[in-house]
Amino acid sequence: MNKKEETKIKIEKMRHSLSHLLAMAILEKFPGTKLGIGPIIENGFYYDFDFSNEKISEDDLSEIEKSIKQLIKKGLKFERKEIAYQEATKIFKEQPYKLELIEELNKEGEKIMTYQTGEFIDLCAGPHIESTKGINPSAFKLTKIAGVYWRGDEKNKQLTRVYGIAFETKEELDDYQTMLEEAIKRDHRKLGKELDLFVFSDLVGPGLPLFTTRGATIRRELENFIIKKEIKYGYQHVSTPELAKVDLYKKSGHYPYYKESMYPLMKIDDEELILRPMTCPHHFELYLSKPRSYRELPMRIAELARLYRYERSGELSGLMRVRSFCLADAHIVCQPEKAEEEINSVLDLIEEVSNTLELSKGNDYSYRLSLGDRENDKKYFKDDVAWENAENILRNVLKKRKSPFVEVKDEAAFYGPKIDIQMKNVLGKEDTAFTVQYDFVMPKKFNINYIDNNGEEKEAVIIHRSSIGAIERTIAFLIEKYAGAFPFWLSPIQVKILPVGKDHIEYSNKISALLRDNDIRVEIDDSDNTVGKKIREAEMEKVPFIIVLGDKEINSGDLAVRERGERDIVNMSIDDFIKESKNLLPDI
Amino acid sequence: MNKKEETKIKIEKMRHSLSHLLAMAILEKFPGTKLGIGPIIENGFYYDFDFSNEKISEDDLSEIEKSIKQLIKKGLKFERKEIAYQEATKIFKEQPYKLELIEELNKEGEKIMTYQTGEFIDLCAGPHIESTKGINPSAFKLTKIAGVYWRGDEKNKQLTRVYGIAFETKEELDDYQTMLEEAIKRDHRKLGKELDLFVFSDLVGPGLPLFTTRGATIRRELENFIIKKEIKYGYQHVSTPELAKVDLYKKSGHYPYYKESMYPLMKIDDEELILRPMTCPHHFELYLSKPRSYRELPMRIAELARLYRYERSGELSGLMRVRSFCLADAHIVCQPEKAEEEINSVLDLIEEVSNTLELSKGNDYSYRLSLGDRENDKKYFKDDVAWENAENILRNVLKKRKSPFVEVKDEAAFYGPKIDIQMKNVLGKEDTAFTVQYDFVMPKKFNINYIDNNGEEKEAVIIHRSSIGAIERTIAFLIEKYAGAFPFWLSPIQVKILPVGKDHIEYSNKISALLRDNDIRVEIDDSDNTVGKKIREAEMEKVPFIIVLGDKEINSGDLAVRERGERDIVNMSIDDFIKESKNLLPDI
Repeated sequence: MNKKEETKIKIEKMRHSLSHLLAMAILEKFPGTKLGIGPIIENGFYYDFDFSNEKISEDDLSEIEKSIKQLIKKGLKFERKEIAYQEATKIFKEQPYKLELIEELNKEGEKIMTYQTGEFIDLCAGPHIESTKGINPSAFKLTKIAGVYWRGDEKNKQLTRVYGIAFETKEELDDYQTMLEEAIKRDHRKLGKELDLFVFSDLVGPGLPLFTTRGATIRRELENFIIKKEIKYGYQHVSTPELAKVDLYKKSGHYPYYKESMYPLMKIDDEELILRPMTCPHHFELYLSKPRSYRELPMRIAELARLYRYERSGELSGLMRVRSFCLADAHIVCQPEKAEEEINSVLDLIEEVSNTLELSKGNDYSYRLSLGDRENDKKYFKDDVAWENAENILRNVLKKRKSPFVEVKDEAAFYGPKIDIQMKNVLGKEDTAFTVQYDFVMPKKFNINYIDNNGEEKEAVIIHRSSIGAIERTIAFLIEKYAGAFPFWLSPIQVKILPVGKDHIEYSNKISALLRDNDIRVEIDDSDNTVGKKIREAEMEKVPFIIVLGDKEINSGDLAVRERGERDIVNMSIDDFIKESKNLLPDI
Repeated sequence: MNKKEETKIKIEKMRHSLSHLLAMAILEKFPGTKLGIGPIIENGFYYDFDFSNEKISEDDLSEIEKSIKQLIKKGLKFERKEIAYQEATKIFKEQPYKLELIEELNKEGEKIMTYQTGEFIDLCAGPHIESTKGINPSAFKLTKIAGVYWRGDEKNKQLTRVYGIAFETKEELDDYQTMLEEAIKRDHRKLGKELDLFVFSDLVGPGLPLFTTRGATIRRELENFIIKKEIKYGYQHVSTPELAKVDLYKKSGHYPYYKESMYPLMKIDDEELILRPMTCPHHFELYLSKPRSYRELPMRIAELARLYRYERSGELSGLMRVRSFCLADAHIVCQPEKAEEEINSVLDLIEEVSNTLELSKGNDYSYRLSLGDRENDKKYFKDDVAWENAENILRNVLKKRKSPFVEVKDEAAFYGPKIDIQMKNVLGKEDTAFTVQYDFVMPKKFNINYIDNNGEEKEAVIIHRSSIGAIERTIAFLIEKYAGAFPFWLSPIQVKILPVGKDHIEYSNKISALLRDNDIRVEIDDSDNTVGKKIREAEMEKVPFIIVLGDKEINSGDLAVRERGERDIVNMSIDDFIKESKNLLPDI
């Protein structure tokens, strides 16, 4: 075990122990409270309580924190003990949730473990620290409370969850809190509203964002960028329907396997139609519309594909988790011997796109190789040789590129292994943004074949991939990354012109028209506000360039340009400004 | 009655009379045949027959034509006679379909009219020509047969319909047949397949086209063009979901009024969702997401909106009639006093777009003013003053523009009058391509208000409009208009490079990369075919420019360019070719 792992386990023990102290403090204050469970989570811990009559609010948390600090001072031991079923039911006779867990442990023949701290005994498998002396009393904090259902089931009683965070040092706690505050400031839902990028409507429905003209501009810029870039990489962009007969998804095997995530069926005439949750079979149908020769391969079929997936309303979150999204999707049909080269080219594309979005490999994103499990025939298509081969191809690509990557077992798709692009958000939390998948199963299901140079029919392989993920999610991510201050090319309004007074509006219109003719997105603030107020408002909108136009500028013919985040105003000719703007556009 | 109308009536009488002669000829050949109806249609006529035992094919038509010609020669009179119900049931006792019609006429108290020609008596209100001498025997033709249901109802018996066309002169007949042949050659379904633009899939479903990369390129060019053009016209392009809670369409009044054309409901959680048949309420929800000031008006909310409308499978036709399409839609929210100016600007936009698509006003398209009906409160929202006002505004716009237009009553939308853009297809058939609608009803239903410059809340009006119609239909129309030979900017492949031999492929790749860098869509034919065959294939694909590259071109560094439809090959420098290509792009 290395140092890093040791530290991690130590911190986790400490967080877990704090959850017990939280329960002790609560029981001191509200003696009749029934206890749920109290595990660790990322950066902290929680404990679930059934307060019956009392109600606590976040205002109570600082007082509870004080009680915990007093418990820490006492230097209480955490003592582990295995007990018999009978004894357990006696000890926890006042705790119905614990009794429920004890019954299950007993039924499954598991040992019943407890930890005692002072007078307090909790049902717990541990591990814990030895004594409360191992906790830094200035490096933890109770953060919030929330209503949750016992065991997450809506049919059960609602409990009160108290959350806490804990670290080794006060500095780490402070850093984390600063980061949290920053994350709240950058929250794409908050900024989306403030910057007028998207809205939701009760009458349209949850998880279905409406993009205003500003938000739609960001969409369009991203979409145009990725289409042009992919075409340069040899992709054929197509356009296929967003629904199909359910038969198509029965053939692909997605239905009923994937049914829970799909929208309900729609009966039309004698057919059952369904909104598509993925693009694959549509692209296969296009491929199969005529016989294909090896000369046409690799055929890289790409689409900005609108997909529909059901998410529970509790899981919806701004643009991150929606019920309909647009995936920059593609399916590469190629000869098996060309797969390695194709996957390498996909990673080239992904890295080039990430560069444009100022995401750096290693910091913002990293690769993960997700493998199958030869023992699990239920989850993975059974063909050991094909799995071995496919996993080696993906591993080879990553090794040859000298790209650092981690390997994880049992994370592959049903039809083959994949490379996951793991993206880190503002809080440092890692998530799979999108994937590159090697598929040796769908070609069999759909007869995705080609005629080779000897006139023989051969089976192709398919590479499923995205280059930029779901547009909605990417926008959410970028809003948070840039805190709304988008780079020039993605800014909905690129230049805000502020006429000093009424007399300068006409000239402002002239300059605005000139910039627009050069494909620059301009807005004029022709309100009656003072220049100072106009500047402050333009800054709030996070516009990359502010141009103030008054008598001086009309006389000189130059522009007084103020760049976002800069104090100084730079005078330059209109031509120079246009030239500099063009330099800010991404290379394609 | 002017000359044109007189001629029209004369031709229609003649066509109607030919349908009677057709029935006579059929009865001569197949005495037991039961007769359906025999009306005129555009350019001709038909008659429906119930042949019971016999079956006829299109091979029989020339023989029937001969019989008709003999009847014409006889100079038979068409004699009109009103008869009593009892007599009618006696005359038509062997004709069950006629008896059915006689019963209805009798029930409704209508007169029962017949026309006698020789021995043949038909139930018919006329009018007819005086004698068969009025028919030019060399200016008509029987064209095809089809299976139809009696009175169009699938529950009834299937009859055999025989179609004919007829004109005053043989020249007109020949011209029409040439045009028909041309239309068949230009049929977008046929060309769509030949040019690999789109396909259908049984597994995806009827009315749901899949655009190949070539077809999708045309789509993208049209879409990018219209977005850029509309932004230049001050539109705000947005992006809203393609479905909503059905409540949204209940509020707008579309559901259940429009229910038959909508997709089925989808139940998700406790909500009922529905695919949208129109964009209006989504745009209203965006407008309503915050309070609006007069300073923000006119707000021109535009979207390339995917819509879903149910069409009966029998009515689906290639890209012309589909079950999902993308409408270049917009809703202009404005002060009532600004409506005239806004509608005028919409027509400016439409005419500019039509110019780019080489559609000329008067020939390819024309304006129609569709009015309401003050007497019909069921079909039209009741507000006589508002109707009067709205109709006058639309009429004024057209008059001031000096645009020729026709006025038709009882063709308006529920919520207001509209200007229809009537498009003529290859056969000269006119159809409403899209509309500009004045709406004074939805602002009331949705409270579409604004704060005026006195701080008072005022009701806005809404102009619904399209600028280019549904993209799918526009593409179908353009395929037929150009017979697949798209102008440079819309051509999926703009340049085909033909290397003379294997030795010239490398140089071809170099030139291709250079052209691609200049956003020209290039394909290389590196097959083993002869240059002659390569040229013929490139011509079949209707590529605007063919560039043959051999030793001569490598040495000179120039390009040998052959323009589509031209015999001559023009030598020019690469730079000049790139410059000339850029000149072929549309102004935006």
